[in-house]
Amino acid sequence: MKTFHAPGHARHAPGFFLMRGQVRPNFEVPARAEALLAALHAMRLAPEVPPPAPLHPIAAVHDAAYLAFLESVHALWSAMPQAGPEAVANIHPSPEMLAQGARAGAGLVSQIGWYTADTACPIGPGTWSASLDAAACALAAAAEAAAGRAAYALCRPPGHHAYAARAGGHCYLNNAAIAVEALKRAGAARVAVLDIDSHHGNGTQGIFWDRGDVLTVSIHGDPNHYYPWYVGHAEERGTGAGDGFNLNLPLAIGSADAPWLEAIATGIARIHAFAPDALVLSLGFDASVHEPLNALSVSDDGFARAGAAAGALRLPSAIIQEGGYAVDHLGALLTRFLTGFQEATR
Amino acid sequence: MKTFHAPGHARHAPGFFLMRGQVRPNFEVPARAEALLAALHAMRLAPEVPPPAPLHPIAAVHDAAYLAFLESVHALWSAMPQAGPEAVANIHPSPEMLAQGARAGAGLVSQIGWYTADTACPIGPGTWSASLDAAACALAAAAEAAAGRAAYALCRPPGHHAYAARAGGHCYLNNAAIAVEALKRAGAARVAVLDIDSHHGNGTQGIFWDRGDVLTVSIHGDPNHYYPWYVGHAEERGTGAGDGFNLNLPLAIGSADAPWLEAIATGIARIHAFAPDALVLSLGFDASVHEPLNALSVSDDGFARAGAAAGALRLPSAIIQEGGYAVDHLGALLTRFLTGFQEATR
Repeated sequence: MKTFHAPGHARHAPGFFLMRGQVRPNFEVPARAEALLAALHAMRLAPEVPPPAPLHPIAAVHDAAYLAFLESVHALWSAMPQAGPEAVANIHPSPEMLAQGARAGAGLVSQIGWYTADTACPIGPGTWSASLDAAACALAAAAEAAAGRAAYALCRPPGHHAYAARAGGHCYLNNAAIAVEALKRAGAARVAVLDIDSHHGNGTQGIFWDRGDVLTVSIHGDPNHYYPWYVGHAEERGTGAGDGFNLNLPLAIGSADAPWLEAIATGIARIHAFAPDALVLSLGFDASVHEPLNALSVSDDGFARAGAAAGALRLPSAIIQEGGYAVDHLGALLTRFLTGFQEATR
Repeated sequence: MKTFHAPGHARHAPGFFLMRGQVRPNFEVPARAEALLAALHAMRLAPEVPPPAPLHPIAAVHDAAYLAFLESVHALWSAMPQAGPEAVANIHPSPEMLAQGARAGAGLVSQIGWYTADTACPIGPGTWSASLDAAACALAAAAEAAAGRAAYALCRPPGHHAYAARAGGHCYLNNAAIAVEALKRAGAARVAVLDIDSHHGNGTQGIFWDRGDVLTVSIHGDPNHYYPWYVGHAEERGTGAGDGFNLNLPLAIGSADAPWLEAIATGIARIHAFAPDALVLSLGFDASVHEPLNALSVSDDGFARAGAAAGALRLPSAIIQEGGYAVDHLGALLTRFLTGFQEATR
């Protein structure tokens, strides 16, 4: 299995994080990727550095105005009097505003609130270039999948909370969606996304909401008590041609291996019935029992079993790194998952 | 002219304020009301303390679930592990979420994001009681207006950014809208709102958006560059029966007396044509040239002229205090405005 990693991720080192009414250290840190990288080397899966991402596969997912915003906002922000070190939203358009003619003005406070969903996606000097590097890793893994193989992309920042025109929850570009679109353009008729990050893959759901050629399955902690808070419920099934092609499997807070693996089995059965040409796997490790803000309590062995279950689909696969913040455990979790995945494909 | 003030406002002393990516001291401070109170005493307009507000006139404006949230959230928040001293949102439902089945969960992070529009309305231990006290002042002023007179309510916290079910921008209960509803229930067929706070009265607009019996007029700094950032444009006119009964008069940033007074004259002409039975005046002093984050540059004399223009309508009037944060100047500005208003009514 080829793996991909771009060292430029380290230029994105977010500081701001607002939680329960207080600013605290952001935990989506470069050390996460370093821990995963060390595990790849130890597994003798030393990653390749992908070529820089061309913009057109990214623009197949994201709005042009949003991409221009992401590229330019930090430099403009830094020139604003009294600006903090990162661009962070303090207001977003409310439902009443959206119903009464809301539009984004040229002002940066307006723009940052328009193009983000929350305060957990600060934009610093290296956010844009790191996001492009993460997308490049996803595209390299998608190219492997398009050739019929499986590959792993060590993406950082993660992507599954990003919508077509909105950042959120540590995510700016939706790496998994970019891989899906690349696979489609390479000839796949149907692509399935299996998202086992502990948070609902709301951005991926949103991007493919009306699409019947992309099945999105997400297994995650109950959003009534966990990010992204407002969506991720079982009744969200897609719309139009996409009706029935979005499957949310929320789990009670505290769920351990048995319900988590059962939900993964349910999702995989749905994927099998969909008969996709390729799989994009959004791989988060934050369902781990070791996770600092854990909603689920999955053991290391659970991740090995999840890898085996996904590998048993024997589909061309692009495995895309999403969240997971227990830095000291990430390497072991990746090792268990990829080992389980590879053994099932032999 | 009777005036009303409730000392309980001081129990609301917000600390959190996120601006341009950094937490800074909140400037909607109790000292604002103390400065205005001192001016009332100096003018020999010593205020009465109104009786506690009954809930039914407030529930005529605000959703029951929102009121229950405001009343209960701080105690619940304080019991949450790692909670900061005030309830502050770090996420709100995005447009994609709203289109895909978003609903608020029982979790407090979910609730606070659902019921607020921004990070500028922290909810502390005294926010609910102070908001009720401010509404009581507005109701007392409305009762005076219902009896054919003019009165001033020293409301703090302010209200005009609060929607029927959403706090925002230092505002929790919409004191002006509560006064309007009280006047309606007292028999007024038509009520006009004139909002000269430097920020668009977006909550008031939202509450009366589809109403033809309440004319809302707001004069404010261009929302392309100023709070509330997304609405307040001239093309927002209302809908249904309310079509044409919302008038926004945004002004270029930096505008001084001449364009501001001209916009007020335009608004007053529209109000005169509407032939209301009563006027509710949302009075902010943040258009002042002395304002720390000023969008407009109105002189003290400009406020005297604005008062004279409003007084010349000779309508029963409830004058409701909104914003204004140049504490050292608030007393002089109130004195100039009320003096101008009273002289025009003689």
